[in-house]
Amino acid sequence: MAKIIPIIQKKEGFNDCIKEISNLCKEDLNSINTLILEKLDSSVPLIHEIGKYLILSGGKRLRPLLTTSCYHILNNEGLNNFNHIGLAAAVEFIHAATLLHDDVVDLSKDRRGKPTSNEVWGNKTSVLVGDFLFSRSFQLMTKYGTIETLKILSDTSVIISEGEVLEISNDKNLEMNEDTYFQVINGKTASLFSAACQVGGISAGAKSNQQQALKSFGTNFGMAFQLIDDAIDYSSNLKTMGKNVGDDFKEGKITLPIILAYGRSNKKEKQFWEKNIQEPSSNEDSFNIAKELIIKYNCIEDTLTRAKHFAEVATDSLSIFSENKYKKALIKLIEMSVKRVN
Amino acid sequence: MAKIIPIIQKKEGFNDCIKEISNLCKEDLNSINTLILEKLDSSVPLIHEIGKYLILSGGKRLRPLLTTSCYHILNNEGLNNFNHIGLAAAVEFIHAATLLHDDVVDLSKDRRGKPTSNEVWGNKTSVLVGDFLFSRSFQLMTKYGTIETLKILSDTSVIISEGEVLEISNDKNLEMNEDTYFQVINGKTASLFSAACQVGGISAGAKSNQQQALKSFGTNFGMAFQLIDDAIDYSSNLKTMGKNVGDDFKEGKITLPIILAYGRSNKKEKQFWEKNIQEPSSNEDSFNIAKELIIKYNCIEDTLTRAKHFAEVATDSLSIFSENKYKKALIKLIEMSVKRVN
Repeated sequence: MAKIIPIIQKKEGFNDCIKEISNLCKEDLNSINTLILEKLDSSVPLIHEIGKYLILSGGKRLRPLLTTSCYHILNNEGLNNFNHIGLAAAVEFIHAATLLHDDVVDLSKDRRGKPTSNEVWGNKTSVLVGDFLFSRSFQLMTKYGTIETLKILSDTSVIISEGEVLEISNDKNLEMNEDTYFQVINGKTASLFSAACQVGGISAGAKSNQQQALKSFGTNFGMAFQLIDDAIDYSSNLKTMGKNVGDDFKEGKITLPIILAYGRSNKKEKQFWEKNIQEPSSNEDSFNIAKELIIKYNCIEDTLTRAKHFAEVATDSLSIFSENKYKKALIKLIEMSVKRVN
Repeated sequence: MAKIIPIIQKKEGFNDCIKEISNLCKEDLNSINTLILEKLDSSVPLIHEIGKYLILSGGKRLRPLLTTSCYHILNNEGLNNFNHIGLAAAVEFIHAATLLHDDVVDLSKDRRGKPTSNEVWGNKTSVLVGDFLFSRSFQLMTKYGTIETLKILSDTSVIISEGEVLEISNDKNLEMNEDTYFQVINGKTASLFSAACQVGGISAGAKSNQQQALKSFGTNFGMAFQLIDDAIDYSSNLKTMGKNVGDDFKEGKITLPIILAYGRSNKKEKQFWEKNIQEPSSNEDSFNIAKELIIKYNCIEDTLTRAKHFAEVATDSLSIFSENKYKKALIKLIEMSVKRVN
């Protein structure tokens, strides 16, 4: 019989860890927030209004924190260089632009417990303000970046949009394979984590092997982070990260737990998945059956195993850096992110 | 009594002029098209498919032609530099991305006589593929540009998206003033024309005054071009540039002819405009009344006067360049674009 794993929500631990890093990078974070606010300014009032609504609505600034931690992990404190501040803001603007467009594409109604911008201002405005934020990020990169960081961030933007189109091309496709799914979440999450880390390191003069290490750290941490997010959707009754448990299933969204469960299901069970993914509903009974099948076939456990694999690679990749408080904090962040569900 | 100006469609003259420039820049245009095709490639087949559908659907490549003409107008033929090819492709990718997003925002059903991408693949896909094209343009800029051209193109992207949000903020606003409208069309058309010209010149080593001249040429030509486009909507029974006459009015879109007509209308006529802009319809009778009012108050004539003002500034700005075939072709292009309606 399949092992039923206890699912304990450890949101607090992860959030405490974010707070710890935020504290460590307090000065940088203040500068980043100031720059973000400054760059939300526009002669068109609606842009400023929506930008503020989205960007100042209490996000954790995880990506800018990665940029600034990866700047400081190099211990080149003498540098007195502010490029990483501008690049961290650019990364946050890219992230905000993708959130706006994602919410339009997914017809989302709320994010972090507040109505989405498309709910408040409509889809059209969200598309165009997303374009503004995206353009603003390129302006920031051009100002604070080098040809090397510009290449990383523009390549990343291509990977993000390719990942999004790949996801929509596989909408409702229960036969999507794991590799395709990994490509989707690399685009959705890991590629921008990776770019955030790399540009931080490069701003502190990272050598080629250090840059490669930060690239690997960001990518693998991002993959682990997204897989855990996917698992959480089937694993707790608590609200986590502003997302309601069951949201993915009720939207008919294919994530790894479902890909695994569908592949392992018998004919009748497969029909259940097909019906509920094709015609998603908010029916709690269907969601409970889905959870039972996912448990029956060890799909949360296996999703966590995949996440842990990526988390371990992420941790190992930091080994080339000498010990310091930033490295310690990043390693703890990986650890706590995997422990969000266990 | 208001003068009824004869409206003669001179599409042929303008298109012949585009053909002439295309012929003059034939080698460059071939290289640009090759690069565009190369950069439409993606591991995600849907991107390639939509990108090809949009970009290879018979557009005139007006913006890349501006880039390459402004490269050659400097007469630095010894340069042997291909950066202008990459930047021209980047400009066309920005243009294509905005077309995709515009069609989603405007709920457009056809473009250049073919169903729009959002009609064929849906709004979601169009938003995401637009993001891809936009990202691709930044990749191209990063590869072929300098800090100077990157700044111009990223600033331009911000102006484009601000213009779009400004337009949507003034949706159905019959009291929008001319200056606001000029800001909208600067974003919609003139800013990218201007950037296209500047990056061409900079790639050929333009000095500061030459760069300023090309900036002025592009901006003013773009303003004239867009104003003529707005006038055409009320001025002919022919299909022009893939757009049907009356489209703007039937979509309830505010353009200069309407801004002028509304301001000059009496109380009863103002009510006509308010009703028909608030609840646009495809009713030919309403469109005919609109046209009559626009003629009564000389609004096409005055729109053309504005366009001619910008066209003259555009022509004058080229005076610092010595005579050559590219300069001659650009001056003819301005002239014929204004003569599209006369």
